Amino acid sequence: MHKEKLLMTPGPTMLPPEVLEVMRRQIIHHRTADFEKIWDEMHENLKYIFQTKQRVMTLVSSGTGAMEAAVCNLFSRGDKVLVISIGAFGDRFAQIAEAYGLDVVKLAVEWGKAVDVKDVKEILSEDINRKIKGVFITHNETSTGVTNDICEVSRLTRETERLLIVDAISSLGGLELRMDDWGLDCVVAGSQKALMAPPGLGFIALSEKAWKACEQSDLPKFYWDLKKYKKGLEKLSENPPYTPAITTVMAQAAALRIMIEEGLENIYAKHEKCAHAVQQGMLALGLTLLPDIKDSSYIITAVKAPENIDIGKVIKTLNNKYDIMVVGGQKHLKGKILRFGHCGYFDKFDIIKAFTALEQALLEEGFYFEPGAGVNAVMKELF
Amino acid sequence: MHKEKLLMTPGPTMLPPEVLEVMRRQIIHHRTADFEKIWDEMHENLKYIFQTKQRVMTLVSSGTGAMEAAVCNLFSRGDKVLVISIGAFGDRFAQIAEAYGLDVVKLAVEWGKAVDVKDVKEILSEDINRKIKGVFITHNETSTGVTNDICEVSRLTRETERLLIVDAISSLGGLELRMDDWGLDCVVAGSQKALMAPPGLGFIALSEKAWKACEQSDLPKFYWDLKKYKKGLEKLSENPPYTPAITTVMAQAAALRIMIEEGLENIYAKHEKCAHAVQQGMLALGLTLLPDIKDSSYIITAVKAPENIDIGKVIKTLNNKYDIMVVGGQKHLKGKILRFGHCGYFDKFDIIKAFTALEQALLEEGFYFEPGAGVNAVMKELF
Repeated sequence: MHKEKLLMTPGPTMLPPEVLEVMRRQIIHHRTADFEKIWDEMHENLKYIFQTKQRVMTLVSSGTGAMEAAVCNLFSRGDKVLVISIGAFGDRFAQIAEAYGLDVVKLAVEWGKAVDVKDVKEILSEDINRKIKGVFITHNETSTGVTNDICEVSRLTRETERLLIVDAISSLGGLELRMDDWGLDCVVAGSQKALMAPPGLGFIALSEKAWKACEQSDLPKFYWDLKKYKKGLEKLSENPPYTPAITTVMAQAAALRIMIEEGLENIYAKHEKCAHAVQQGMLALGLTLLPDIKDSSYIITAVKAPENIDIGKVIKTLNNKYDIMVVGGQKHLKGKILRFGHCGYFDKFDIIKAFTALEQALLEEGFYFEPGAGVNAVMKELF
Repeated sequence: MHKEKLLMTPGPTMLPPEVLEVMRRQIIHHRTADFEKIWDEMHENLKYIFQTKQRVMTLVSSGTGAMEAAVCNLFSRGDKVLVISIGAFGDRFAQIAEAYGLDVVKLAVEWGKAVDVKDVKEILSEDINRKIKGVFITHNETSTGVTNDICEVSRLTRETERLLIVDAISSLGGLELRMDDWGLDCVVAGSQKALMAPPGLGFIALSEKAWKACEQSDLPKFYWDLKKYKKGLEKLSENPPYTPAITTVMAQAAALRIMIEEGLENIYAKHEKCAHAVQQGMLALGLTLLPDIKDSSYIITAVKAPENIDIGKVIKTLNNKYDIMVVGGQKHLKGKILRFGHCGYFDKFDIIKAFTALEQALLEEGFYFEPGAGVNAVMKELF
């Protein structure tokens, strides 16, 4: 007998029962007062999650679609942009910008490290003719378990004409992000991570400065054209411009209700506390974190595979024997790391359960440590 | 006490209990054997629905996204294309093509009529230098309740270098469409119409000729880049390239299982029979169909508002008092027509129920006919 899989993954994340409950309901039509009420409530609550007074726009897409919307709405062919990449999702922003013919300066940071804000400052200061029109950055890089200091980077663009575009897909609602206070110009998110809804919705919000930049953009777009969504928000008959993913919207609205009740500060604190516990547990097992502990994400912890241990097998044992889903590395980190997510709908006991299973799976692969050492370290941090 | 709303709309359509059942399940991860099985099964079954041996690709998007994917994958800036538009969704294809800088020749047909194949033939014959590289057409135009004869139009492109791109969003799985037999080069569909799943998935399939055209396309694209999806179908780790709408995929897979069991011929026959019944019922009430009866859609029936009757009020009474959702007109047909959908998960008794309510709502607005005349005509056709 297998229990339902416990996903300790960087997305999709587990769904609360309140979310599953609305998903089983018969479909309603999107051009109705019933749907409008839920739609408006969701968007009002998203403002709180984004910490912005701006409209948040909802796309039927995965997070990548919302990233593309940022690129093709804010820039024009040949525009010079700086893409800060610390992993697979930073690289994706560069690829999208290149696909649209932008002139991409890429600041590629070694996988496992956060960007050094001094390096960004240097590139921007050297750009004396202010050719660089925008800076792209990943808030939380799930491929490496590293978080960038968005607040610090935002000081470099906040009072300038440059736009700061933040991929907050895996961080929003889990890590502190203050769109308006920090002066972020574009924040992109997705439904299936800390926002505790199923995958299928991309979110994007723009600052006033970014809305002005939209007016200049000459890149071709139709589905991603944010001006249509802005217009649509004012009038139900065009709101949204295309058939929304009705069920997923209802699910997201239900998930946000839970988050509002919990309060963002408490949610941030939970992610931080649980991440510290997982970090200490990993260290107690004699494992090494991929990042410096100061840069290690509160959303997902990446540890290096111990020498002579087949980490792929450990992950398979966790998934198949113990019904705990964790993931391995991407691209050149494949087979070299294990990533343990702690994001969205989870609690301390999920961490304990998953960590117990991790200990067992490591022991079964012949990795030596004092049984219970990791779990004890985790418990000490959690309680 | 209100009963659950009965949607007699052109999408979203009602969801079968088997579909709702899978939607209430806890999320599973997409990079797993469990998901792969469902994903592969869905794509195998989609081939049957598309009547093609080609891969069908699944996008997280509304139908419009899949339309955009057709435009930006198959053509290059400045390419001349013919867009046949018989309503709002034909216009949309033209708008997308224009947004990408294509040279659009638009064959605009009066709303309420199907295209006359002779007119298409004439335009193509006059294009002696064969500048027109593609022809866009809507299979079923939901804004007017009119179906184009795709099989006839396809004879004009089948043996040529020109591509035929068919918007089958509201028709696929409800109206006969044979992608391979008819030589259609690109067919676009969506999950929320005759395919009986919630909105959130766009589908697209390409012929060999269309895949070759993709190689020439210079339009910018990333999320819509179909080559990535083709590659992904061969390898689970990149399959699909971006996080799929897991729950919606499971729902679509469940809906397709029902359709496979029913058989396409039976499904087509049901739509045809029910449409004929609705048409006869409308005529028996003294209403006038917007289209010629020979062009009237088997998916949705559009009737003109009788003189001196506020059709908006009739629709509101149906929706609010009788919990039957039908819709009005779009753009310049707003307030001038009523559209009664019969698409996807519905049966004869739904038609009777909705028609009974329609009679009542019309009577309440002061439109005169012999009570029961419409329902009797419907029953006569149905049983």
